[in-house]
Amino acid sequence: MRGRDLRKGSTTRRAVERVSLDGEVVERRPRRDWLATEEPLEIRLHSAGGMPVPVSVTMRTPGSDFELAAGFLYGEGIVPSPEAIASIRYCVDEARDGAQQYNALTVRLSPGVEFDPSSLQRHFYATSSCGVCGKASIEAALGPACARIDDPVRVSARLLPSLPPRLREAQALFERTGGLHAAALFDPGGALLLLREDVGRHNAMDKLVGASLLGGSLPLRGRILLVSGRLSFELVQKAARAGAAVLAGVSAPSSLAVELAEEAGLTLVGFLREGSYNVYAGGERIVE
Amino acid sequence: MRGRDLRKGSTTRRAVERVSLDGEVVERRPRRDWLATEEPLEIRLHSAGGMPVPVSVTMRTPGSDFELAAGFLYGEGIVPSPEAIASIRYCVDEARDGAQQYNALTVRLSPGVEFDPSSLQRHFYATSSCGVCGKASIEAALGPACARIDDPVRVSARLLPSLPPRLREAQALFERTGGLHAAALFDPGGALLLLREDVGRHNAMDKLVGASLLGGSLPLRGRILLVSGRLSFELVQKAARAGAAVLAGVSAPSSLAVELAEEAGLTLVGFLREGSYNVYAGGERIVE
Repeated sequence: MRGRDLRKGSTTRRAVERVSLDGEVVERRPRRDWLATEEPLEIRLHSAGGMPVPVSVTMRTPGSDFELAAGFLYGEGIVPSPEAIASIRYCVDEARDGAQQYNALTVRLSPGVEFDPSSLQRHFYATSSCGVCGKASIEAALGPACARIDDPVRVSARLLPSLPPRLREAQALFERTGGLHAAALFDPGGALLLLREDVGRHNAMDKLVGASLLGGSLPLRGRILLVSGRLSFELVQKAARAGAAVLAGVSAPSSLAVELAEEAGLTLVGFLREGSYNVYAGGERIVE
Repeated sequence: MRGRDLRKGSTTRRAVERVSLDGEVVERRPRRDWLATEEPLEIRLHSAGGMPVPVSVTMRTPGSDFELAAGFLYGEGIVPSPEAIASIRYCVDEARDGAQQYNALTVRLSPGVEFDPSSLQRHFYATSSCGVCGKASIEAALGPACARIDDPVRVSARLLPSLPPRLREAQALFERTGGLHAAALFDPGGALLLLREDVGRHNAMDKLVGASLLGGSLPLRGRILLVSGRLSFELVQKAARAGAAVLAGVSAPSSLAVELAEEAGLTLVGFLREGSYNVYAGGERIVE
């Protein structure tokens, strides 16, 4: 993997009016506030000998863009290893001004790495059968490459509630804007290994998985994944594909997230609060 | 619009292990809990004389599926009025069992209503220019049909903080699962007119807009929209397209959400809490 991950600002300063109520008194004061930056990122794929093909536009917080692209393509099954990527480069148009730069990048695949553009049409696919059932969707989403997770890692029941405070401490950006989701990687001793943020929680997870891919540390064996938001089907899917055995969150999972966690052999923990939490799947990995 | 909106369950009961910590004591108890149901919904479009074309698969909470489809298609600029829809029907395959039914529906367009499938490729588009800039994206997203909002509605500065508690009271499902986002419509007197929920906040907004479309109450003039989650670009876009003049949320907006609100002439309120909030755009509509 070559190319520098040039950064746009991940926070933006804006004028805002602060309204405070105190009984009958309404106070309105102008002030300046930090917002999480949200901008589109176009990801293009370039096979050896082919032309670049746009495969995705996602609304993301600038920063770790190369990791985001790598993690997204890993999750889609296109890039199975860091060696599959020849280079990642921003597509910079010198005619544009600075604020409009760095919102498109090209991932060049290594010779011999093929991709089928139709495999990306998951959300726009044509089918001759009638009805999309959750079951079929789970199987299609997991795909043939995702084996059941057999990681023997064990996690202390008492350790888990200490992880969200550690995540929040580390989330410097969150403190400033209040608008960023996070995905974090811990070891079973509770040490924070990796943290990525984004306005989109799926992007935060893609960035974390992409960083792990580019750093040669996939699959995520012996690790705990923690996310700041709700536990959706798509987050469990991304975690399972990255080989994570334990996924925890401070909020609720969906029905399909639990179903997929059970099928994939993933330990799923929700409502992770100070003195309690729920275990939805894979409770055998949680020990005293 | 014809066809019945048959419902799958919007909540699912699952076995869960509750872990409670009290000093050195770890208590693990099995119990049954309610989860927000998440399942795929495939939306197909059927022009008069043509074949049904799948245009979207979204992970959604079953319930108000016809409204979700109508609101999604309105937001995409395909269905400008209720008259443009001839019918909405589930695509039911009798060979499948009950749990797998009702995850696909077909929207049949009225004669003379055309759609261009390529207009739906927003997230998978090809472009010969280099770079996607936020500005161009905003203009493309707003599209030619979205005029600047000139709604003269005024909202009481003191009324706004009373809306989130009213939303939470009405969110019966939220109380049960803790996993559902909400979009709600209020009049300037603070009366709750409409509430829709979903695991995805964009879906909740699509359902609300779709219900308004099918009920003949678009554009949403003189109304206040309140959402439970963060204020993203896409939510502001959906609100602006529905003609809402005021969009409020309990959490943070993104930079692009504020930029779009300013361009569209929409009043954007964030961090709406008991005694204070921030006004990011359109403060002239908030009066004492």
